[in-house]
Amino acid sequence: MRTQVAIVGAGPAGLMLAHLLRLRGVDAVVLERRSRDYVERRVRAGVLEHPTVELLREAGVAGRLDREGMPHHGISLRFDGADHRVALTDLTGKSITVYGQQEVVKDLIATRVGAGEPLLFEVSEVTVDPATPLVTFTDAEGTPQRLECDFVAGCDGSHGVCAAEVRGTVQAHDYPFAWLGVLAQAPPSHSELIYAYHERGFALHSMRTPEITRLYLQVAPDERIEDWPDTRIWDELGRRLAADGFTLATGPILEKGVTAMRSLVTEPMRQDRLFLAGDAAHIVPPTGAKGMNLAIADVWALSEALDAYYRVGRTDLLETYSDRCLRRVWRAEHFSWWMTSMLHQAPDADDFQRKLQLAQLRYVATSEAAATSLAENYVGLPFQR
Amino acid sequence: MRTQVAIVGAGPAGLMLAHLLRLRGVDAVVLERRSRDYVERRVRAGVLEHPTVELLREAGVAGRLDREGMPHHGISLRFDGADHRVALTDLTGKSITVYGQQEVVKDLIATRVGAGEPLLFEVSEVTVDPATPLVTFTDAEGTPQRLECDFVAGCDGSHGVCAAEVRGTVQAHDYPFAWLGVLAQAPPSHSELIYAYHERGFALHSMRTPEITRLYLQVAPDERIEDWPDTRIWDELGRRLAADGFTLATGPILEKGVTAMRSLVTEPMRQDRLFLAGDAAHIVPPTGAKGMNLAIADVWALSEALDAYYRVGRTDLLETYSDRCLRRVWRAEHFSWWMTSMLHQAPDADDFQRKLQLAQLRYVATSEAAATSLAENYVGLPFQR
Repeated sequence: MRTQVAIVGAGPAGLMLAHLLRLRGVDAVVLERRSRDYVERRVRAGVLEHPTVELLREAGVAGRLDREGMPHHGISLRFDGADHRVALTDLTGKSITVYGQQEVVKDLIATRVGAGEPLLFEVSEVTVDPATPLVTFTDAEGTPQRLECDFVAGCDGSHGVCAAEVRGTVQAHDYPFAWLGVLAQAPPSHSELIYAYHERGFALHSMRTPEITRLYLQVAPDERIEDWPDTRIWDELGRRLAADGFTLATGPILEKGVTAMRSLVTEPMRQDRLFLAGDAAHIVPPTGAKGMNLAIADVWALSEALDAYYRVGRTDLLETYSDRCLRRVWRAEHFSWWMTSMLHQAPDADDFQRKLQLAQLRYVATSEAAATSLAENYVGLPFQR
Repeated sequence: MRTQVAIVGAGPAGLMLAHLLRLRGVDAVVLERRSRDYVERRVRAGVLEHPTVELLREAGVAGRLDREGMPHHGISLRFDGADHRVALTDLTGKSITVYGQQEVVKDLIATRVGAGEPLLFEVSEVTVDPATPLVTFTDAEGTPQRLECDFVAGCDGSHGVCAAEVRGTVQAHDYPFAWLGVLAQAPPSHSELIYAYHERGFALHSMRTPEITRLYLQVAPDERIEDWPDTRIWDELGRRLAADGFTLATGPILEKGVTAMRSLVTEPMRQDRLFLAGDAAHIVPPTGAKGMNLAIADVWALSEALDAYYRVGRTDLLETYSDRCLRRVWRAEHFSWWMTSMLHQAPDADDFQRKLQLAQLRYVATSEAAATSLAENYVGLPFQR
């Protein structure tokens, strides 16, 4: 087999890259270790930045997003027992859209399959040679395959084979807590996301649809999900999200799990003709809702660079791809760290640090400049060429 | 002896309180352990916030400040080998004024002495009874004295006798570095303050007059000044402040010393009829230039409260004095911590944290919202009634 760009991984990064390349007339083959059914059901992030939504629209894959996605014009910071709204749209002119990552994945898979473009699920034994470049794998039928190509896009996440091929530096930071996340068959208790600061630990009220709530609790990094029967989860959510006039809607818990909080950045995001994008190159803690959005920003930059290469032979955008992406990545790493450290109870925090957190929250809630700073990061800074 | 308000300490807090009370017809006696000469020469902070300058003007003690003070409309963040100016005045409509704390002290002493109001230097063995209230001391002539009063204002700093009389909570945080500060007979090398981020540690270029530069180096908390001959100081300043087109003017070093970096907040800032103000109640690290400004904000609030008490018998402003001050204090503690942690090399910092610092600096240098947030804190948020 031969293609122009071999894409390893059919998450949002790999699928969106394949789609953007197709729009520019560049051929790609997408390889995915999991089944279509699995990736379409994998529950992940659910907040799309303004630039992400704009790009999905420009790329013609926002039909269902525009019908079913829920635009949000603000978020709440809940502390001192009350809500302090950050008016995202009033402050920035932009909004976010609540739409599950797996819905984006479904839309992109449907588009690619509908167009008859190559997308191979359930491949195994993937190897990547960044220099040649060459990708080998075993297809779903068990037949070994060689995929020759001009470039490889590594979109297979932080545990994938591509990241391991990059001989760069990895900067990592483990946060001293994790998130226990639940998906519940219950209508959202509030029309917007609530980021709750509480002495017992952070809690987040989010949603997926008008019928499905997504809720999170700060827990210890080694917390065992078996120790959290549903009643304990609801009790703890009720405590941490308590506020005057607020009632937490409950219902059957459909999914629950504990997610580590981690930052990780690989530099450069490239090795020879292999380019990393999304989680393969960087991880952010979920507090800032930046993970999927960074992946989309990466592949936008990569598609522009590959387009310039194939159309007019320019290589400069490929050369600067990593540096350009990393500026946005470090901005997002900082923002995610900032949101995380403002809202969580660190195990070693003393009263002084808790007072600083509250001083910062009160400041964000009362200063237009500070609220705008949060808001412009949250809705997403513009893509930079 | 009897007065309405006994003021312990003739730093900016005590002297300004005495002056504001005099303008309102309230009698006060100011007691100071040191000599007039000593307090007039004590080199401390040198940046006055906008609200501080406005208050000094309204109070009629800004004549020399307006002639000799140097208004600044911006500061520089120096990193990546270049200056990134935060345009304070463009962003906030306000400015700061470079004018040494001891100059404010001189002006206030001259005013008080000129008016023949009581101001006793070189007192010793001061005791404060917050409940009665009563202040006892030995005067400069060695005569024991009793000062009966309605209220005591504790303006004698963090090591003074007043802070020790408050049975509240003390929150403290020691930063893992100190500042080596020098006063040099050399013209400022740049027209504005330069906050330099450098891998060898933070450096600050400031000034006192057109002929006197004030410079600081981040050093270890236990650094011995004896280990820093002048040549070493200039070498290190030259390294950390290096930038294209910048030449550091050098000259004789007039003073040098190492100052610990500490945060400390006493809550409440009151015990019975004793009210703390300034350093007696709270310490901030010097990075945000907030120490003296907080002291002035405290005594403004205290003078308003005492005025309301004596004029119309209102006690509510005295009751809320501590809470009102502490809002501003915690804002300043957070801002000072934020500036400090953005600019200093922590001994235990890893590459990830340094990358976050740079991401934050680059963000402040490119986002109007983030720059405005820094600027509005730096020029001073408005006094809140």
